[in-house]
Amino acid sequence: MAKKVAIIGASGYTGGELLRWALMHSEMDVSQITSERFAGQAATKLNPNLRGFTQLAFTPVKELKNDVDAIFICTPHKTGAQYVKQFFETGVKIVDLSADFRLHNKDTYAKYYQEHPHPDLLQHAVYGLPELHREEIKKAKLVACPGCLATSIILPLAPLVKAKLISVEGIIADSKIGSSAGGAGFDISTHHPERQGGVRSYKPHGHRHTAEIEQELSAINGAPVSVGMTPHGIEMVRGIMSTVHVRQTGKLADIDLWKAYRSFFTGSPFVRLVKDQQTLYRYPEPKPVVGTNFADIGWELDQEKGRIIIMSAIDNLVKGSGGQAIQNFNLMNGFDEKMGLWQPGFHPL
Amino acid sequence: MAKKVAIIGASGYTGGELLRWALMHSEMDVSQITSERFAGQAATKLNPNLRGFTQLAFTPVKELKNDVDAIFICTPHKTGAQYVKQFFETGVKIVDLSADFRLHNKDTYAKYYQEHPHPDLLQHAVYGLPELHREEIKKAKLVACPGCLATSIILPLAPLVKAKLISVEGIIADSKIGSSAGGAGFDISTHHPERQGGVRSYKPHGHRHTAEIEQELSAINGAPVSVGMTPHGIEMVRGIMSTVHVRQTGKLADIDLWKAYRSFFTGSPFVRLVKDQQTLYRYPEPKPVVGTNFADIGWELDQEKGRIIIMSAIDNLVKGSGGQAIQNFNLMNGFDEKMGLWQPGFHPL
Amino acid sequence: MAKKVAIIGASGYTGGELLRWALMHSEMDVSQITSERFAGQAATKLNPNLRGFTQLAFTPVKELKNDVDAIFICTPHKTGAQYVKQFFETGVKIVDLSADFRLHNKDTYAKYYQEHPHPDLLQHAVYGLPELHREEIKKAKLVACPGCLATSIILPLAPLVKAKLISVEGIIADSKIGSSAGGAGFDISTHHPERQGGVRSYKPHGHRHTAEIEQELSAINGAPVSVGMTPHGIEMVRGIMSTVHVRQTGKLADIDLWKAYRSFFTGSPFVRLVKDQQTLYRYPEPKPVVGTNFADIGWELDQEKGRIIIMSAIDNLVKGSGGQAIQNFNLMNGFDEKMGLWQPGFHPL
Amino acid sequence: MAKKVAIIGASGYTGGELLRWALMHSEMDVSQITSERFAGQAATKLNPNLRGFTQLAFTPVKELKNDVDAIFICTPHKTGAQYVKQFFETGVKIVDLSADFRLHNKDTYAKYYQEHPHPDLLQHAVYGLPELHREEIKKAKLVACPGCLATSIILPLAPLVKAKLISVEGIIADSKIGSSAGGAGFDISTHHPERQGGVRSYKPHGHRHTAEIEQELSAINGAPVSVGMTPHGIEMVRGIMSTVHVRQTGKLADIDLWKAYRSFFTGSPFVRLVKDQQTLYRYPEPKPVVGTNFADIGWELDQEKGRIIIMSAIDNLVKGSGGQAIQNFNLMNGFDEKMGLWQPGFHPL
Repeated sequence: MAKKVAIIGASGYTGGELLRWALMHSEMDVSQITSERFAGQAATKLNPNLRGFTQLAFTPVKELKNDVDAIFICTPHKTGAQYVKQFFETGVKIVDLSADFRLHNKDTYAKYYQEHPHPDLLQHAVYGLPELHREEIKKAKLVACPGCLATSIILPLAPLVKAKLISVEGIIADSKIGSSAGGAGFDISTHHPERQGGVRSYKPHGHRHTAEIEQELSAINGAPVSVGMTPHGIEMVRGIMSTVHVRQTGKLADIDLWKAYRSFFTGSPFVRLVKDQQTLYRYPEPKPVVGTNFADIGWELDQEKGRIIIMSAIDNLVKGSGGQAIQNFNLMNGFDEKMGLWQPGFHPL
Repeated sequence: MAKKVAIIGASGYTGGELLRWALMHSEMDVSQITSERFAGQAATKLNPNLRGFTQLAFTPVKELKNDVDAIFICTPHKTGAQYVKQFFETGVKIVDLSADFRLHNKDTYAKYYQEHPHPDLLQHAVYGLPELHREEIKKAKLVACPGCLATSIILPLAPLVKAKLISVEGIIADSKIGSSAGGAGFDISTHHPERQGGVRSYKPHGHRHTAEIEQELSAINGAPVSVGMTPHGIEMVRGIMSTVHVRQTGKLADIDLWKAYRSFFTGSPFVRLVKDQQTLYRYPEPKPVVGTNFADIGWELDQEKGRIIIMSAIDNLVKGSGGQAIQNFNLMNGFDEKMGLWQPGFHPL
Repeated sequence: MAKKVAIIGASGYTGGELLRWALMHSEMDVSQITSERFAGQAATKLNPNLRGFTQLAFTPVKELKNDVDAIFICTPHKTGAQYVKQFFETGVKIVDLSADFRLHNKDTYAKYYQEHPHPDLLQHAVYGLPELHREEIKKAKLVACPGCLATSIILPLAPLVKAKLISVEGIIADSKIGSSAGGAGFDISTHHPERQGGVRSYKPHGHRHTAEIEQELSAINGAPVSVGMTPHGIEMVRGIMSTVHVRQTGKLADIDLWKAYRSFFTGSPFVRLVKDQQTLYRYPEPKPVVGTNFADIGWELDQEKGRIIIMSAIDNLVKGSGGQAIQNFNLMNGFDEKMGLWQPGFHPL
Repeated sequence: MAKKVAIIGASGYTGGELLRWALMHSEMDVSQITSERFAGQAATKLNPNLRGFTQLAFTPVKELKNDVDAIFICTPHKTGAQYVKQFFETGVKIVDLSADFRLHNKDTYAKYYQEHPHPDLLQHAVYGLPELHREEIKKAKLVACPGCLATSIILPLAPLVKAKLISVEGIIADSKIGSSAGGAGFDISTHHPERQGGVRSYKPHGHRHTAEIEQELSAINGAPVSVGMTPHGIEMVRGIMSTVHVRQTGKLADIDLWKAYRSFFTGSPFVRLVKDQQTLYRYPEPKPVVGTNFADIGWELDQEKGRIIIMSAIDNLVKGSGGQAIQNFNLMNGFDEKMGLWQPGFHPL
């Protein structure tokens, strides 16, 4: 029998995307979606793509019923922690897509966000990147889904950090990201005439996702890893392309990287290594992964400069949030990791 | 047991899209894909989205084996007819996506294309628009898939023509279409700097799809229907928005149109009537149908001018070609029309 | 000596564009720009393109000094009329870019907008389309600049209406327009993820510009002309492409249209007739006119359907507002119509 | 009296852009434009923006007359050198926009291009970046215009290298570039459906412009400077955004960078320092510089990581080629550097 699930804060882009995948999932039965602002309105009012697929309407969170097997939390940070607190003791499985339980250290959380409202719960959360924590996720009651930029930067770096192939100092992650990553909230910066065709470095340094990137890579490394991340909003609705510039620790051959990546991602169906000789799409690009849960990863050795240019591409709303949440849900429930997510992208798109 | 199918001319965008859907279809087993130009190369070289979903490589058509249940022909016109001729007698079911068997009248075909190479076969072909010819398609051996623009214009007009609600003189169809409709072939007109952000009326009148539009609507009307069609290439890869301007025959009320549309499309799961009061997406738009087999149709009565503005939106590569081909395949094989096609779009995209 | 000018309501896109052209104009000296909301802030805060070209800051309108030769009003309708009232008696030349003085008939104004606040002034206003009213503009104290869509639809129709070559019933104007036409105000409909790549028929009928289009064409015709206008927001920031579908009154030849257009636009430097045999840009398109004051006009006869497809392209912020305002200013001051405006567009753009 | 100039290889995007600016320049008289492929055709066939601005037609280069004051060479590399050879002895001033005379060292040229056809002429060429070599350019007979990416990377780095504020090891330049930079030639990679919305790292390392970047910065430094450059084609026709990641040599304050930049660019009208506190466009972006000769430069200190993120934005076809060529022409002829180029961009665009 399918699992009953509820989505809290379902009126944003993350919640909408999660709802889309959940509706098509053979083992999920979405019983409730909440939104304070849009309470009483049909989900299809905000999600025209779902016309014909659901009759669900948003309800206020206070009307949420307890008879669910899993809860997905798609609210902003701080609010997320409150719902985790509220439901954690009920035993329901929780997938939290807010930022509140990604960081294990409450001081780091305080530095990047604010004082943590429920630091006692931090110890129960597993960082929900299946390629790194698959076994813990299977047993977890509370999974904290990674940030979209973090996903696109941790995945390509983890194998090389683990294999000690690169310098852990001075890593540069230069990311290009679509406008949907900013969410459904709007202001002058997202006004079409101002945003269209632009390249905007909206946060050249100190982006919050830096904290979780460094947490995860440092854990793998057994010592601090430092990543300078600079995201750029570019003309694209969905998609992230992260170009990660690292220094080789010694003279590497291409085969060394193939080995490190293949070894690390064995058993991880949603990571594709993309490095062809001649095709147009010989490196990862966002377009072929839009609408999918894949993370495409490729690289090139620059022997003259002793560096490696690593490229990774994901759909920020799928592998970067809603799809990854379902991947975690699948693992937490003993389902095949790919269930309901095994879809190719579109070409051309 | 799944049906074995082959795709002839699979290296274009239509063939690639068809392949995508066929690979995900539970009752289809794609055994062969042909391309002369790319023979020997992997399908994923042209379709980076399909990495991880197929090991198929293109073969030359002469190596095509006979042991298939259905053949999809995705070649340009004229070439299409030759393959239909070649396979028609073998008894295999044929879905032809070229333009060669859409027109019943060989003179009309000659006027818009060239002399028909195999006019004797025209009588066997059914025009593959399920919403108009569902029962004939179920019994057909040869189905001719409609053009993408034609699909987007016939569907919104058919119910009103049938119900005699509009003048059949001076209908204007002003279409906006994405660049993928031109196919994988390129020239200066599709060069990104020249095509990006443009609005180009590349064929203000006399577009070939006019012939099939008038054929189908005239048949419904029992008398000639005249449609002036003007397509515009706009900034979009996938998608067609057709705005159809017609005159009311008498004073109509909104309910008259609702009745005509609802009645006509009962039992047609892929047509959605979109006409809301307040939402942002209150009329059809291409974005919510991209990646889907839906045709969204809406309208507005302009009582002051005695006209109706009808809007329809499809994905030219899905409902406009590859998806519709599978919809026809499903019908020809007695499957549920929706099989393998029941997917919502993405929002935002 | 250069004329001193002030711009009221300068913080919007129309005001910003006007400021740009005015700063580069050899006979204009912009002494004041007003904005209530941005009072005290530098013009370059909203117009990053003007860095290095002006030190002007916005002032509240109450601080506006009287010692100017001309005032440009760039506020929304209703507010525009108040400023016209305030300054009309001072003898300063007024170019009003709001909609308040475009319509001669106060009842028509009331139907499309609201009760007119100062109907007594209507008789003093000249409709500021130089190609139609050049001589009156030269003598006018108050010029009402046309709407952007209206400009793109009146210009291609006027010569054919005047020459009695087309039916004045059932004209269809299907326009495609960029997002900047909606102005600097934002809401969910202009949020980049919702607006990007879309085709949105936001006002299928009854658009306000219909009133001025019919007013101007009816005056030329000496009898009512009816135009059904349907604008679509498409993926573009600047630019309008209007495709106008009309019926021929008799059997026309191409030369008949050439004659009508050439005759009408003799002496109008900003109208270019674009109708080539072979080039890629053989019809008008927005891209080559972006950033210019040109209106490109072309057409094709559809003899089979007895119709004409007329295409016109302008930059909504230049010929559609700020540039046309300066063209009017030039005429009102006895300057060369082209002064400060004679700039080609960019290719590719 | 205006200088007579000829443009060799005028049918590409660089030549077309140069022609545009030259036609508007009060001291330039374009007497000839050459193209083998388009000989006999009007310039406006390829440049629809120039309709009404020129009657020039392309001629084959062999018909080029000698009576010109300056020649602009816009051909690909290798061909460029041949024309330089042909005209150098005639005493005409030469502005070469090909890559052939940018590198002083023939071995470096051979490594990145091919054996240099005329190495004897290398000593006569001045690298045409006015902000670095203004005085030499004034006296030069042969100026080699910089590459577009090189311009966007050298300018933001030169002041910091000169002031010894940054490490000259491990500099990373991550550039985002529009499709027009690839020129008018097309293939599948520039086909709109494949290129639109993409982020493509087409040359992760070893890009040819690296050579001139390192040449110029090393000269300033008095010792080798190493730059790892990774350009990405993104959704944009015009524009380059280079994000340059460098390490501070010591603990720097913001004022140190302001001083270094202000000092270096005193007297350079086309460099604007862009670093605001609050505005939307507080860092450089391509949009406000499109259509202009400006290079906007900004930065942010990342004290935690000891790095600096430097951002620079140019229009690849103006400051990146055609505009810079005219800036050089102005200097070579003793004109004001800004002559014919002092135009602001557009907002919004």
